[in-house]
Amino acid sequence: MKIAIAQLNYIIGDFKGNLANIKRAVNRASSEGADLVLFSELSICGYPPLDLLERKEFISKSMDSIQTLAGSIDPETGVLIGAPEYNPESRGKLLFNSVFFLLGGEIRQVFRKTLLPTYDIFDENRYFEPNKEFKILEFRGKKLAITICEDLWDEQPFESEFSRSRLYNSSPLDELMKFKPDGIINLAASPFSHRKMEVKQAIFTGKAARYSLPLIYCNQAGAQTELIFEGGSMAINSKGEVVNRLSFFCEDFDLVELEDLAVSNTDTSTGKIPDRMGMIHGALVLGVRDYFGKMGFKSATLGLSGGIDSALTLVLASEALGPENMHVLLLPSQYSSDHSINDSVQLTENLGVPYDIIPIKDLFNQFRTSLQSLFKNLQEDITEENIQARIRGTLLMALSNKFGNILLNTSNKSETAVGYGTLYGDMSGGLSVLGDVYKTDVYDLARYLNRKGELIPENIITKPPSAELRPDQKDSDSLPPYDLLDHILEAYIEKQQSPAKMEESGFDSKLIHRIIKMVDRNEYKRYQTPPILRISSKAFGVGRRLPLVARY
Amino acid sequence: MKIAIAQLNYIIGDFKGNLANIKRAVNRASSEGADLVLFSELSICGYPPLDLLERKEFISKSMDSIQTLAGSIDPETGVLIGAPEYNPESRGKLLFNSVFFLLGGEIRQVFRKTLLPTYDIFDENRYFEPNKEFKILEFRGKKLAITICEDLWDEQPFESEFSRSRLYNSSPLDELMKFKPDGIINLAASPFSHRKMEVKQAIFTGKAARYSLPLIYCNQAGAQTELIFEGGSMAINSKGEVVNRLSFFCEDFDLVELEDLAVSNTDTSTGKIPDRMGMIHGALVLGVRDYFGKMGFKSATLGLSGGIDSALTLVLASEALGPENMHVLLLPSQYSSDHSINDSVQLTENLGVPYDIIPIKDLFNQFRTSLQSLFKNLQEDITEENIQARIRGTLLMALSNKFGNILLNTSNKSETAVGYGTLYGDMSGGLSVLGDVYKTDVYDLARYLNRKGELIPENIITKPPSAELRPDQKDSDSLPPYDLLDHILEAYIEKQQSPAKMEESGFDSKLIHRIIKMVDRNEYKRYQTPPILRISSKAFGVGRRLPLVARY
Repeated sequence: MKIAIAQLNYIIGDFKGNLANIKRAVNRASSEGADLVLFSELSICGYPPLDLLERKEFISKSMDSIQTLAGSIDPETGVLIGAPEYNPESRGKLLFNSVFFLLGGEIRQVFRKTLLPTYDIFDENRYFEPNKEFKILEFRGKKLAITICEDLWDEQPFESEFSRSRLYNSSPLDELMKFKPDGIINLAASPFSHRKMEVKQAIFTGKAARYSLPLIYCNQAGAQTELIFEGGSMAINSKGEVVNRLSFFCEDFDLVELEDLAVSNTDTSTGKIPDRMGMIHGALVLGVRDYFGKMGFKSATLGLSGGIDSALTLVLASEALGPENMHVLLLPSQYSSDHSINDSVQLTENLGVPYDIIPIKDLFNQFRTSLQSLFKNLQEDITEENIQARIRGTLLMALSNKFGNILLNTSNKSETAVGYGTLYGDMSGGLSVLGDVYKTDVYDLARYLNRKGELIPENIITKPPSAELRPDQKDSDSLPPYDLLDHILEAYIEKQQSPAKMEESGFDSKLIHRIIKMVDRNEYKRYQTPPILRISSKAFGVGRRLPLVARY
Repeated sequence: MKIAIAQLNYIIGDFKGNLANIKRAVNRASSEGADLVLFSELSICGYPPLDLLERKEFISKSMDSIQTLAGSIDPETGVLIGAPEYNPESRGKLLFNSVFFLLGGEIRQVFRKTLLPTYDIFDENRYFEPNKEFKILEFRGKKLAITICEDLWDEQPFESEFSRSRLYNSSPLDELMKFKPDGIINLAASPFSHRKMEVKQAIFTGKAARYSLPLIYCNQAGAQTELIFEGGSMAINSKGEVVNRLSFFCEDFDLVELEDLAVSNTDTSTGKIPDRMGMIHGALVLGVRDYFGKMGFKSATLGLSGGIDSALTLVLASEALGPENMHVLLLPSQYSSDHSINDSVQLTENLGVPYDIIPIKDLFNQFRTSLQSLFKNLQEDITEENIQARIRGTLLMALSNKFGNILLNTSNKSETAVGYGTLYGDMSGGLSVLGDVYKTDVYDLARYLNRKGELIPENIITKPPSAELRPDQKDSDSLPPYDLLDHILEAYIEKQQSPAKMEESGFDSKLIHRIIKMVDRNEYKRYQTPPILRISSKAFGVGRRLPLVARY
């Protein structure tokens, strides 16, 4: 049996566009002799549709698209495609997260998702009733066990002090094995997480090996606001070896013979995952490109400070959107050093990006004048630093408004975590590119991007980080060294470790509590940050929900 | 059997404070001869604790507090109190949402929540495993059916085209009736919604009448960031009549005899709910007071524009925090009318609130000068309006930073819905007071607050709304009349009606689509708004999750 894996990039709610893209892939599969074509989870409507699932018209359009698809493709080619399905029962949630099997111009069979992830970024219990009846797909003499994404994750890889490996009370594959299938299909919408690629692959190869069955996994490739889906679909043989791998971070298409997946694979390189910086690079470029492309925007505005975060953001965005679509502003304050300007200019020249310079001193002085009667003889403090950051935000937004482009936010995860940033100032923007990248990874990524030659001037990478909002300011005046800070932040945010557990790792108790306090008390700032491209297992944003008002 | 209802206000994660408050209520109940004291759902840790539930230490502290409570109160007084409980099974979610029965210095019994709301603002499936075993509380010769909030909501009141009345597959009360209980207890954390008060009450009175049993409902009273819990706990007799009602929007305490709930109530006024504007007023004042109080802040900054939204916000905040804690700025632009300033000054005098005036013309001119070389001969447009709004935002935030108070956002729901506001300008602030109040309700609420004498100058209420950011600007230049707009917005947002359904109500198809488009395309702005005090059944914020990037 010839199975085509169609790894596509979808736009949520764009039924017309998605349908056209899907049809093209079915036609290609048909012409290449495929028996069956796989698409990813909820692909007809785009994943995650969120509360659009609560709109009657959205579900109708989705069902209509499935019907249209069934009627407009080669009736000999089977299609497995994800879409929401009405729950015919009068009790329970209104929808199932389902996979439709299309053949002969009609819907032949429907398979429903059993395990509904409801943690981190996932809210599937919000919309869907879980499946309770198990069925097999019998097609051209083969029996296929159809699963949807989380259905294979009944045993979660242990990750934190507090998470558990068995979140669910059942194992869909154990149920499906009763039908003695010849292979396992998994249609997924599985988002990227830079430290979980091996874990994810191990889930699939582990299941194939455990049941001694070939497994074909079809993921989507594309970014949906903050979520990046890396693609990387796979065909795995019954020994648990990766035989086919589709590209990361772009659409792809491949054909596999189910029968070939019964034999050993001699090429072990297929299962190799590119190194971490390469994956982060691919993810962020895709994230920027899809945010703009799917929003219908072409160009970005960005403020270059002379620091590494805005430099890296510019390099990534230039790659995603083209250097000609970048509108760069240099906004030096009276405290900015000459080298900040020179380094920034050098960077724009390296990239071929046009730039303008607007000094903010006069504006700052005008604000001081306007506020004089109120502030009288009060000492200058963080207020004046924030005013300068907000002047920059206002100038950048003016550019964005006037020329119709999107302001990119350049904050990194370390500073977002501890609140080292100004709301409505440097925390502004339509999209945060580095908000899930710790400062230490920012450095590593900058070096990675410079690997074939200097894009980011060396001086930007090596100089001590500073906001340059008061004389001789350095990040290290207010923050612990970044390597230390990032370790504690990752333990707290990603690993959800308790202070006691962190102390066991040798970190200073006072430092741990100081950092935790900074993170907690800045929840209110993060509530108002732009969406952040998610690359870790726990990003700020929709997957991390903490009370703003709490005493803990 | 004498049952005390302790309707308290909790701070999330403040185990020490919550415990002290709870103990005081138990002591009072003991001294007044109560057999049993009721507290609300997850009260020991505060509701909703959100992802704090994923922290080991948080659950330990909660369990310790329950143990401490059990050991430090009169051993003869029974206590029913909500807290998270570890799931002892190795499969399924790690926690139950439980009620602990304390007696004789120890935990005697635990009851678990069966129906876990996972829609709108609720995410309980994210954290909790549902109960599957039903038990009864036998105490002093009585059998009590213990339920937790949603457990009574197996039949949801029908509200939208797309929601259904039976979200769940079981009815906990039907199960519990097998034990032949003498009464029903419901410990809840049920948030306020101004059009759902009658519906909520009908759920409780309906259950009591249906099973011919008394029902005692204990809610929390207090605001948790955007969520406002109105209190209004009740004792309902077996005919479904409200016999006792605790106060709305504040802590309260009452004692009821279970036996008295078997007889008819002659006083029908107990079940009467105050009128809608009165309830909204109470909710918003509590919302502001608790946000500040629980955050540890005393004073607020606010920009008065001369319009009704900022005027109403000031009146509500003055009531919540005291007029002496308001720092008001008037920030006239060159387009501001004299009456805007005069009306604002009149309002501050009516309230006894001090104010300062900072004209923004010079700042605006300085921005124009700074941007001259970039904008060259381009026409002035919305960019220049936004610059003025952002100058105001920056000045207000400077005040907030310098004096350590919180900027209040003054946007209403109508403008937030259609994106009629400037991000980082008038959309700034730590808390949005009116972001869930439609403009037409803003007017009604202003009139309500003026009912005992003019607080808000009549001219502010009667003049046509304008942003005053360009000459002779009126809201009606860009927006349909507010009464029409609000009807369509409410149909779309709260009632989740499809355009077809709205057309059936007689609205113009073109207008419907124009408004829907405005709402949809401004999702990105709302992503970055402050938390909004929630008073409706569908507020912008955590309970409404739509993709920013979509084509639908």
